[in-house]
Amino acid sequence: MRASSRSVAVRDDGRFVRLVLACDRAALARAISRIENETPDAIAVLDAAFEGSGRARRIGITGPPGAGKSTLVTKLTQEYRRRDRTVAIVAVDPTSPFSGGALLGDRVRMGELAGDPGVFIRSMATRGSLGGLAVHTAQVCDVLDAAGFERILIETVGVGQSELEVAQIADATAVVLVPESGDGVQAMKAGLMEIGDLFVVNKADRDGAERGAHAIRSALELRTARSDWQPPVLLTIATQGTGVPEVVSQFEEYLDRLARQGGLERRRRLRLEQRLDDLVRDRLIRDFRDRLPAGAWAQALDALAARTLTPHQALAQLAAESNSWRPTP
Amino acid sequence: MRASSRSVAVRDDGRFVRLVLACDRAALARAISRIENETPDAIAVLDAAFEGSGRARRIGITGPPGAGKSTLVTKLTQEYRRRDRTVAIVAVDPTSPFSGGALLGDRVRMGELAGDPGVFIRSMATRGSLGGLAVHTAQVCDVLDAAGFERILIETVGVGQSELEVAQIADATAVVLVPESGDGVQAMKAGLMEIGDLFVVNKADRDGAERGAHAIRSALELRTARSDWQPPVLLTIATQGTGVPEVVSQFEEYLDRLARQGGLERRRRLRLEQRLDDLVRDRLIRDFRDRLPAGAWAQALDALAARTLTPHQALAQLAAESNSWRPTP
Repeated sequence: MRASSRSVAVRDDGRFVRLVLACDRAALARAISRIENETPDAIAVLDAAFEGSGRARRIGITGPPGAGKSTLVTKLTQEYRRRDRTVAIVAVDPTSPFSGGALLGDRVRMGELAGDPGVFIRSMATRGSLGGLAVHTAQVCDVLDAAGFERILIETVGVGQSELEVAQIADATAVVLVPESGDGVQAMKAGLMEIGDLFVVNKADRDGAERGAHAIRSALELRTARSDWQPPVLLTIATQGTGVPEVVSQFEEYLDRLARQGGLERRRRLRLEQRLDDLVRDRLIRDFRDRLPAGAWAQALDALAARTLTPHQALAQLAAESNSWRPTP
Repeated sequence: MRASSRSVAVRDDGRFVRLVLACDRAALARAISRIENETPDAIAVLDAAFEGSGRARRIGITGPPGAGKSTLVTKLTQEYRRRDRTVAIVAVDPTSPFSGGALLGDRVRMGELAGDPGVFIRSMATRGSLGGLAVHTAQVCDVLDAAGFERILIETVGVGQSELEVAQIADATAVVLVPESGDGVQAMKAGLMEIGDLFVVNKADRDGAERGAHAIRSALELRTARSDWQPPVLLTIATQGTGVPEVVSQFEEYLDRLARQGGLERRRRLRLEQRLDDLVRDRLIRDFRDRLPAGAWAQALDALAARTLTPHQALAQLAAESNSWRPTP
């Protein structure tokens, strides 16, 4: 780490940005760390990356824990490589700090993909807000996109709304399930049915895979037609690579179609709006807190705890004390 | 609905608030709807409820889909009723709008708890942000607390970070798992191990329940000691009520102890700070958008989509155009 960070010439932003855009792996790794840590010197690379982005296809892979997402992502990557596409993997793992889930998945993957210069793998974990994670993930995708990776696979443990938000920074998303997920309510309860452009029933060598797929297809029929795309439900055995080429083909077909019909552009615009909104929010709250008189926040909190102020009254009081903001009358 | 809403006298906030605090069920239901819909007339009841709150114990019940949380919550409620405690259940179901998961769980519960005036049940679903859901859930708990319910059980499908946030508005949280959850990484990956004050292995009539509980206990030993409380791991068969009294006893013992040691107060203060922060954020962004010149937001978005502005540049431009806010130099 030391050696590579020195070679990257941290004091020379111009050179650093050029290295990132030229896909220098040490520079890429360092740029991503800057994004994760929100250091001020991340801005230069973010701006350059944003300007140079927009070519890569960003593909979300989500699903409940244990569905075999990591293995599937590895196999999808190999299939894309066979088709001469370069691939970056961003594995988003919003787990508890002590679980080490992200690292574990990574180590397994490394074995199969190591040494291929057309592949870049990065895990992102968080201890902070998941809102922040979605922002960071989008930024990291910009960097990898601008560095020339043609496909970016974003892997998330998608069960909660926030993980879905991370998945939804993608151009298209596959939901990975297992045969038993077909048992109706269960799969639907996770809220996953809505976001998939494509569904994969992995571990299809288990009993009931066809039945599970059928149940998922039936559930999808309930989904209000948001386009003329009926999400396919594909069977895979990721550990053996079975069904993987079909997943890639379907993804590519879907994205080609989406691009032709203008849907891709619309979707990306929505994503950009969300990013701008997140950025504005973060900045507003930071400035607001910075401009409060010392102790004002703690006093409001004391009053809340004593129930002498209600939350709305505390908001009004803080607003009156802040010199950066007046609430709408 | 029509009849009850008329009887509630919507134009008379004072009377309405009194009805809510007197635990009038139609008024309660209506107050909660106002909170969910964020109607301006929710403020009066929110302020009154906040002032009158702080007595109820708020207990979170979370865990992956299929762990049997709804059944367990029903049985816990019956046990609390046996101990002469009134109980409100808030079932938070951040599912897709079309799944109807919340309603389903409710209907099952209704059968067993219907007609008991000491029980109130409310499901909350959302199509919007989960941040909003956590805020609303906390507010609904205030209302139920002020209306006199002694225990509030907050049930969430807890796998994502946001569901954990919802669970964490509680004073204490039980994580409900199944015997197979003990298979190591799986349970930990969900990030659930960190937030439980108590763990329940439900469906303990299945094979491997003791082994599962043991694996969970081992995993908990890895957890950094955040207090001198070693979370108990209890076995239940919720459908038969087996083990349920022990769960209630352990919860009560834990909360008594937490209250004696000042931990409850500290925890509640943290929750209040989070709520205030959320409230300030929401208000800031709303005011910011309101005060932008017409079309400024859309223009920034166009420039983003054309990549002639980066997100940070768009932020700076909007800030310059807003008449409510100047960024810190």
